Amino acid sequence: MTLVQNPSTFLSDRARGVRQSAVRDVFDLAMTPGLISLAGGNPWLDDLPLYELGQIAQELVAQQGQVSLQYGTGQGTPEMRQAACTVMAADGIPDADPDLVTITPGSQAGIDTAARMLGNPGDVVVVEDPSFVGALNTFNTWELDAVATPTDEHGLIPEGLRETLQRLRREGRRIAFLYTIPSFANPSGALLPADRRDEVAQICREAGVLIVEDNPYGQLAFGADPVPPIAAKHRDQVIYLSTMSKIFSPGVRVGWALCPPALQRAFYLSAESAYIHASILSQMLATAFVTHCDWTGHVQRATAEYQVRADALVDQLRQELDPAITFIQPQGGFFLWGTLPQGADTLPLMHEAAEQGVVFVPGGAFSPDDVPHPTFRLAYSFVPGEQLREGVRRLAPVLNGALNRL
Amino acid sequence: MTLVQNPSTFLSDRARGVRQSAVRDVFDLAMTPGLISLAGGNPWLDDLPLYELGQIAQELVAQQGQVSLQYGTGQGTPEMRQAACTVMAADGIPDADPDLVTITPGSQAGIDTAARMLGNPGDVVVVEDPSFVGALNTFNTWELDAVATPTDEHGLIPEGLRETLQRLRREGRRIAFLYTIPSFANPSGALLPADRRDEVAQICREAGVLIVEDNPYGQLAFGADPVPPIAAKHRDQVIYLSTMSKIFSPGVRVGWALCPPALQRAFYLSAESAYIHASILSQMLATAFVTHCDWTGHVQRATAEYQVRADALVDQLRQELDPAITFIQPQGGFFLWGTLPQGADTLPLMHEAAEQGVVFVPGGAFSPDDVPHPTFRLAYSFVPGEQLREGVRRLAPVLNGALNRL
Repeated sequence: MTLVQNPSTFLSDRARGVRQSAVRDVFDLAMTPGLISLAGGNPWLDDLPLYELGQIAQELVAQQGQVSLQYGTGQGTPEMRQAACTVMAADGIPDADPDLVTITPGSQAGIDTAARMLGNPGDVVVVEDPSFVGALNTFNTWELDAVATPTDEHGLIPEGLRETLQRLRREGRRIAFLYTIPSFANPSGALLPADRRDEVAQICREAGVLIVEDNPYGQLAFGADPVPPIAAKHRDQVIYLSTMSKIFSPGVRVGWALCPPALQRAFYLSAESAYIHASILSQMLATAFVTHCDWTGHVQRATAEYQVRADALVDQLRQELDPAITFIQPQGGFFLWGTLPQGADTLPLMHEAAEQGVVFVPGGAFSPDDVPHPTFRLAYSFVPGEQLREGVRRLAPVLNGALNRL
Repeated sequence: MTLVQNPSTFLSDRARGVRQSAVRDVFDLAMTPGLISLAGGNPWLDDLPLYELGQIAQELVAQQGQVSLQYGTGQGTPEMRQAACTVMAADGIPDADPDLVTITPGSQAGIDTAARMLGNPGDVVVVEDPSFVGALNTFNTWELDAVATPTDEHGLIPEGLRETLQRLRREGRRIAFLYTIPSFANPSGALLPADRRDEVAQICREAGVLIVEDNPYGQLAFGADPVPPIAAKHRDQVIYLSTMSKIFSPGVRVGWALCPPALQRAFYLSAESAYIHASILSQMLATAFVTHCDWTGHVQRATAEYQVRADALVDQLRQELDPAITFIQPQGGFFLWGTLPQGADTLPLMHEAAEQGVVFVPGGAFSPDDVPHPTFRLAYSFVPGEQLREGVRRLAPVLNGALNRL
């Protein structure tokens, strides 16, 4: 007789509650041959100097294997922490201190570490609605209560945030932090304007609330310079997370956190208790990309390609979608966020769309609540323009058809 | 004015409680030039075929960069999961199913995921005393109460375990799992005999308690075949953790969990919420080591070297140490565990030893309680024999001297 007859007896409350259905389904669906996936936010890697990187990888292993294959320190290699500062300078933070950087195995691990370090079970994390599904999952894991604050097509609404924080205070809730993706957010694509960034920082400072700012996409700005992160001017109240995943490679799993000095040691110790450190080989390869390759040229070329793809997607959506279906035109990043009229539910539409040969992620996946959502996310980053157009041709009848049933 | 005046206001209870002092101190000390470190359990990498691995790394990036640098699946690559099964066959589990394997970024992350998935705050994890400090840290993080069960020089004492579980049941505690390192444990070096393994499994089965079996060192057996893991015969009640860290490279951060079928999905989803997946490049390199290199030859040669080092350490300790100081003679793995007479405290001795040019880890670091401990761990894996002997010559006067003060 097997011990585990009923797994839920053995699982923690949090493991029983892990949200997964919609997004898990869609990623399983996305493997179907012939299907066009507008689901996954994969970066476009065709422009990477793979031959050059291969030479570097050979040297890192053959010449420096005693370092690249051995244990390192929990905070990350000094070289990668310096490279992170170089990348952050291009993000708009010119003067980051490598001693305040902790390298993480991707920025999901950075979000997880922030939650581990700052949140007690039952605390609130204030989030945008919609917010990044991976962050919502990790907050759920830490038994944090993700509470949405209002957004519009430009991201967080400062007045709404002020009211949310005040209400939570009145209710006696401990607020662990505000989690925000101000630049080209996943999933909304929204770009928070500079003045709102200052207002958000000011409101959080007054309320004594830390900000966890997640900025994987900030440099992928179409036709304009990146808007400096909140951390640029408000360093002491922000744990700033960034990553090599969107500007180089997600496969190597190298991200980082820039912490206020008073929180640096706690972040690093929390990180170490979770995974010791990120792959040293990965850190060394990512470092070399920044120090030895034309990494800024790569980011420019990749961003140009993302813009071409976003334009193709927008153009085709305009041709095919009923005007009752609206969307935020991307100004950068990987994603387009659309909204059907109130009353629509995009979860069943996902299955209908899959039957037509296209998948997307229904908006409910990105929301802390569990009600039907009329929203949807389309990822254009990894799909060539012609396929994007064909994807829209398959998707539009499904979305337009839903309008008749409202 | 900076927001974070008093970091503890912002930290979670768990982050405030992260244990760190002794071990953190010692690893900081171990950086001092000229000092002989018997502290860190680094593997010996000199025998690795670095040139061959460099060629492989080049090809993985230059030819397969679209895969090795891209996102992969949360469960790990099918090839690495198969390679993990090959390694587990050599551990003594000949028939592991790759569908039940989840690749983790090192086995620390596997321990963390098991705790995340199985433990509610306030639950008990039953541990050996001493136990692995990294595991104790992560249990602390998850607000699990590590409760020690008696051990001797052969590891877990089955009768003691039975009594511990009964006592905890009487006290109404939920037991999340038993965490054990049965083979060449960190830090004790103890090897749990086969008959005790069956008894432990039987006792846990009767008590309805899952086992998390951590086996990084099992193949590094001196002069005998590895004792098969508990999971070999008792698969349905064990989450089995292993890693490439000790048989190949810790720097690449590739470990895995083999789960009972009913728990596989929960493990994988919990893992994904923490870090998405392990580095794909790392997984591909580790896979190639198993499929294209003489990995079993490497393990044999490395084990032979560890045995030479352990022998040198034991020989020198026998020459130098007062017979009132006892130790467990290693039969495999990386560590030797010593004990001074009752009343001694090795924490201040660590600082004395550092002044004499040698560091070790005081035993208290490996215990869930916070009282003075008369024990110490010496790691011989990374130190050539002559240096080990010199280290003992520096260390012995410190340890022997402590006897006079009892």
